[in-house]
Amino acid sequence: MNFGSDNVAGASPRVLEALVEANRGTASGYGTDGLTGRVTARLSAIFERDVDVFLVTTGTAANALCLAAMVDPWGAVLCHAEAHVATDECGAPEFFSGGAKLVGLPGFCGKMTPMSVEAALTGGHAPPPHAVLPQALSLTQATEMGTAYTAAEIAEIAGIAHAHGLGVHMDGARFANALLRLDATPATITWKAGVDIMSFGATKNGCLGVEAIVVFDRARARHLAERRKRSGHLLSKGRFLAAQLDAYLADDHWLDLARHANAMADRLAAGLVALGVRIAVPVEGNEVFAVLPRAMHDALQAKGAVYYRWAGTGVPPGDAPRGEERLVRLVTSFATTVDEVDLFLAAAGHVDHRE
Amino acid sequence: MNFGSDNVAGASPRVLEALVEANRGTASGYGTDGLTGRVTARLSAIFERDVDVFLVTTGTAANALCLAAMVDPWGAVLCHAEAHVATDECGAPEFFSGGAKLVGLPGFCGKMTPMSVEAALTGGHAPPPHAVLPQALSLTQATEMGTAYTAAEIAEIAGIAHAHGLGVHMDGARFANALLRLDATPATITWKAGVDIMSFGATKNGCLGVEAIVVFDRARARHLAERRKRSGHLLSKGRFLAAQLDAYLADDHWLDLARHANAMADRLAAGLVALGVRIAVPVEGNEVFAVLPRAMHDALQAKGAVYYRWAGTGVPPGDAPRGEERLVRLVTSFATTVDEVDLFLAAAGHVDHRE
Amino acid sequence: MNFGSDNVAGASPRVLEALVEANRGTASGYGTDGLTGRVTARLSAIFERDVDVFLVTTGTAANALCLAAMVDPWGAVLCHAEAHVATDECGAPEFFSGGAKLVGLPGFCGKMTPMSVEAALTGGHAPPPHAVLPQALSLTQATEMGTAYTAAEIAEIAGIAHAHGLGVHMDGARFANALLRLDATPATITWKAGVDIMSFGATKNGCLGVEAIVVFDRARARHLAERRKRSGHLLSKGRFLAAQLDAYLADDHWLDLARHANAMADRLAAGLVALGVRIAVPVEGNEVFAVLPRAMHDALQAKGAVYYRWAGTGVPPGDAPRGEERLVRLVTSFATTVDEVDLFLAAAGHVDHRE
Amino acid sequence: MNFGSDNVAGASPRVLEALVEANRGTASGYGTDGLTGRVTARLSAIFERDVDVFLVTTGTAANALCLAAMVDPWGAVLCHAEAHVATDECGAPEFFSGGAKLVGLPGFCGKMTPMSVEAALTGGHAPPPHAVLPQALSLTQATEMGTAYTAAEIAEIAGIAHAHGLGVHMDGARFANALLRLDATPATITWKAGVDIMSFGATKNGCLGVEAIVVFDRARARHLAERRKRSGHLLSKGRFLAAQLDAYLADDHWLDLARHANAMADRLAAGLVALGVRIAVPVEGNEVFAVLPRAMHDALQAKGAVYYRWAGTGVPPGDAPRGEERLVRLVTSFATTVDEVDLFLAAAGHVDHRE
Repeated sequence: MNFGSDNVAGASPRVLEALVEANRGTASGYGTDGLTGRVTARLSAIFERDVDVFLVTTGTAANALCLAAMVDPWGAVLCHAEAHVATDECGAPEFFSGGAKLVGLPGFCGKMTPMSVEAALTGGHAPPPHAVLPQALSLTQATEMGTAYTAAEIAEIAGIAHAHGLGVHMDGARFANALLRLDATPATITWKAGVDIMSFGATKNGCLGVEAIVVFDRARARHLAERRKRSGHLLSKGRFLAAQLDAYLADDHWLDLARHANAMADRLAAGLVALGVRIAVPVEGNEVFAVLPRAMHDALQAKGAVYYRWAGTGVPPGDAPRGEERLVRLVTSFATTVDEVDLFLAAAGHVDHRE
Repeated sequence: MNFGSDNVAGASPRVLEALVEANRGTASGYGTDGLTGRVTARLSAIFERDVDVFLVTTGTAANALCLAAMVDPWGAVLCHAEAHVATDECGAPEFFSGGAKLVGLPGFCGKMTPMSVEAALTGGHAPPPHAVLPQALSLTQATEMGTAYTAAEIAEIAGIAHAHGLGVHMDGARFANALLRLDATPATITWKAGVDIMSFGATKNGCLGVEAIVVFDRARARHLAERRKRSGHLLSKGRFLAAQLDAYLADDHWLDLARHANAMADRLAAGLVALGVRIAVPVEGNEVFAVLPRAMHDALQAKGAVYYRWAGTGVPPGDAPRGEERLVRLVTSFATTVDEVDLFLAAAGHVDHRE
Repeated sequence: MNFGSDNVAGASPRVLEALVEANRGTASGYGTDGLTGRVTARLSAIFERDVDVFLVTTGTAANALCLAAMVDPWGAVLCHAEAHVATDECGAPEFFSGGAKLVGLPGFCGKMTPMSVEAALTGGHAPPPHAVLPQALSLTQATEMGTAYTAAEIAEIAGIAHAHGLGVHMDGARFANALLRLDATPATITWKAGVDIMSFGATKNGCLGVEAIVVFDRARARHLAERRKRSGHLLSKGRFLAAQLDAYLADDHWLDLARHANAMADRLAAGLVALGVRIAVPVEGNEVFAVLPRAMHDALQAKGAVYYRWAGTGVPPGDAPRGEERLVRLVTSFATTVDEVDLFLAAAGHVDHRE
Repeated sequence: MNFGSDNVAGASPRVLEALVEANRGTASGYGTDGLTGRVTARLSAIFERDVDVFLVTTGTAANALCLAAMVDPWGAVLCHAEAHVATDECGAPEFFSGGAKLVGLPGFCGKMTPMSVEAALTGGHAPPPHAVLPQALSLTQATEMGTAYTAAEIAEIAGIAHAHGLGVHMDGARFANALLRLDATPATITWKAGVDIMSFGATKNGCLGVEAIVVFDRARARHLAERRKRSGHLLSKGRFLAAQLDAYLADDHWLDLARHANAMADRLAAGLVALGVRIAVPVEGNEVFAVLPRAMHDALQAKGAVYYRWAGTGVPPGDAPRGEERLVRLVTSFATTVDEVDLFLAAAGHVDHRE
């Protein structure tokens, strides 16, 4: 019963098989192999336009490289106050950019609002060169609270950003999970809505360790080749990154994997609701933020269930935990089984929480 | 009638005379001259303990060097959300530190509160190495809204910082102005209250361009000599920085200069109150934050009065500008004259603002 | 006939099998899994002492992290003028260290000499804080010209470095190849000879993409956890790095792989000598630097042989190419076959190069 | 008898008087005052074209800002191996540029040669993104050994640099001294010869502390306003920098000051030659590199003469010190007196150095 993170799962068997298959013969190094080219073609097809692709092994690297390519050292990046880039990457964007500033914006359920973005861009800042210059906006899809931005929401926020000269980045660590929840195509919730560059996640959803930087607007993605090499993220045997993504993208495998993860999240949420548990945030990806009675939490812990408590600053006031309640995050993955979910629900149900 | 900033004034005549005097003969370069040594002795006497001193030409350099000496590139600095280091130095602390993060805390009238500091240090951050590590706290004295922290307030905040392993920096760009408002000595509102290192301002209060980094705790001021040289802030003819400070500190000249600036601020505030104007923030230095009726503002502008409008996010709600009112900042200096103040008040008074 | 680099090969089948095996079940993320612990134990056994281990995916990352951990931004790293860290990593050491300087030392056959190291440390540098401060020395084993430092040579150079307060790093991208050529154990040519930290290479010798930072002297390896995370090199599914190294190290598999590569280099060199070709640099690893007659070079190219021409600044004058001769680098790997070598030699032999 | 450096002198009286004069009234801050505008006009007249000007207080800041404006973090700067930027600025160019590399070229008497520049740009570097990219060349005028590049020499080197896409920077810490030795105008040895940006020195030649970044090619001087502010080099009371330069440039005062310094260097050199002393490097500025017999050196030291011994790597072999001889650097300034020179020569002459 491990719902701690989607990175506790291993890799999809099809992805692993592709890796074994890719091992045949020699291949030129540093991303000049044929498989890497094929991945670019697949992503271009998926996004319905020519894209540039840079493969790396972690989401932190993908995000930091994207942001560094868009902002100067004296630039600023607008993002949600709880964005992964701001809170969980040990300052990687600052490091890669040479010291740019991340400006955290408020917003319930992990989502920035057009109003907060507008306010951040029109406040009484000192004129240049005194204040830093906002040059990019980063939004996470699905968000850190498992919600999804609609195409219209992205377009509105990106429109404000563009109107002020900012580039728009999407952290798509759980892009597939969000995509499936929306009436959308990959194109409609990215470049057609104003996204200039994205981190296209694959590790959490069934790969061993690969993320694709997908560039929609080349003018905003400066010197990614140099930045990737200089940061140690250009792998010599690049075919082993490409092979993972090639299998991941083929035959909609990535969507199948995410569809399962989402279904497991739904099953978990529905089961908890049936037990009287409050779901604090809409389930729009593969994450469930639930408010557990203290006794239920204790019982689950005692039975070895793994998940994280959440600070809960982003939950709408009405849904926030009260008293002894515990706000927790439960994450499902492509590898989560129905049995695992049901076992968890059974454990949660065997509690008399009318204390 | 220039109340735009205390940097529109020139230098105190005594400071200038000292510069002329210092021009005699040869002197060894790079801060190894005799005058620089004398300044260190003067600051040690003023602070009642041995201090290390590093002279630079700007407050931005002093602040950034102090913070860089206290935090790692993956560190964080707690400061007020409107602190000069966070909003007006074009990311200098980030640059000098190699990418550390400034965490802006809320607080009315430019002051952090113990509660906001405590909250920032105990929130649900990811464990290392995922989240950045708070390693320093920076407070401004007088604050950016012209208020002053008392010795007790500093001690409480610094105590929390120290308890969490942080170093404490004071941005003392207007230190003299605050000092005179408090029942305090330089020592009681700095190292005796827990300040480890400070930027001792002199430029705004009568020098041409010199600030002193004053080190109380050497263990927290790592490699300042290398950092200063590497950032281009080690002047070859160092005697010309030292000469300014030597005259500035001699015979309490620095206090006399600040006393005058404060008196002019008081006169300005009192005059405005007499005209029915609301003072939005306590005048505890040489800055007056006043809420002007629109007609008074327009009349003053028409008569050439120079000052800045203020965004006003830090004003307590009850005192914030309403409707057509204008929140403005008026800064006095050692060079402000009684005539200048009275001229301003006269201009402000010649308005029928019962519109 | 691909002798361009040892990174054109894929992975050893045993390493790939271990990856498939590692895919079972869940595992905690970010290097806290059991396999990562086992790799640390294996490396401790191999080096006959407790070591700290940090896994990353590229040699560039390993080297840059090691050097950044040992030098300040105003520090300098001594290395051979043709060292990979200085010439082929796009400034990664400068990036990770915040701007430290790499000082390239001369030396034939890729090797620094004690005299050049001593000279670099005792020259007439400006005193601090004017000149940068040498704080680390980096040597490559095997060197970029395929030669190997003996234990005695390392000890002498490391001794000079330590006497001047420098830390010692070894770039061991081809460590196994050098080790097998020397009458040595892993310990005798690393920490027992004065190496403080090393990049233990595995990718070129049969892994998909993993290198181990091995720390012998913890006092010289500051904040590697934070540096690795901040640079995007902490993989979430860390077991997939550890699994590669676990299989690589088990049962001396790494030595068997390198032994084969070395044997192929020997066969290649011997065959070329038999054809009258001059070997410019002693073959002490898996690289052959040969001086080909122009006609032989042209014939090999025409037949599709892949290898790189070399600028040749490091070859002793007597062995350097003359006139139309071509200095070339031929690299063998664990995957090079006898047939491939013999095919190459046959192609080289079918030339009348008495032109 | 202080010939240690031209920074041991104070300031020219006219420069100091201008500072006192500039103290009247208020002036807008941060370089928006009228005096700063006047300095730009003066420099435009002197260089016979419109130039952009950025004032700072040190040569290290001027140089580092210029280079950072021309190179990316993964760029490289070609310069003489003994250039001040490479050896005496504690890595400032690396810091300001975010980690670019300085590549030191050989050359006697402090001068790079066209051949060494060409060689550095056409060597067998790895292709991007593996090797760093040369993007700028920096030459010092007068050089660190007191020699001067002619217009033709600059044009040839700058031509090679431009042909390879590099920008050209001149470190003109002693520009006036070199200018007066050449049959040249300021324009002919700068932008007309291919210089794109320069550090126009004034501190060593009679100011208290001010250097002007002079931009000839705006396209190569990116974001200097932001870089200057962010590094703490934008002074609030900017008029006090401008006033120095205004007086320095007026009525050819800067040339008069340098002419005197050069004359004193000539007198010193001629006197030493008359004493049988070998001058190791042509005196083409205000520096004399002399090879003193040991007894003469000891006698001068005993009498309190101040100067530096020099490592001497850049002296042509025939002129290098032998045995007990001492290579020393003697620097004169605008403030050096005839008496001081003659006293030095008398002290040197009172030695029986036929030992």
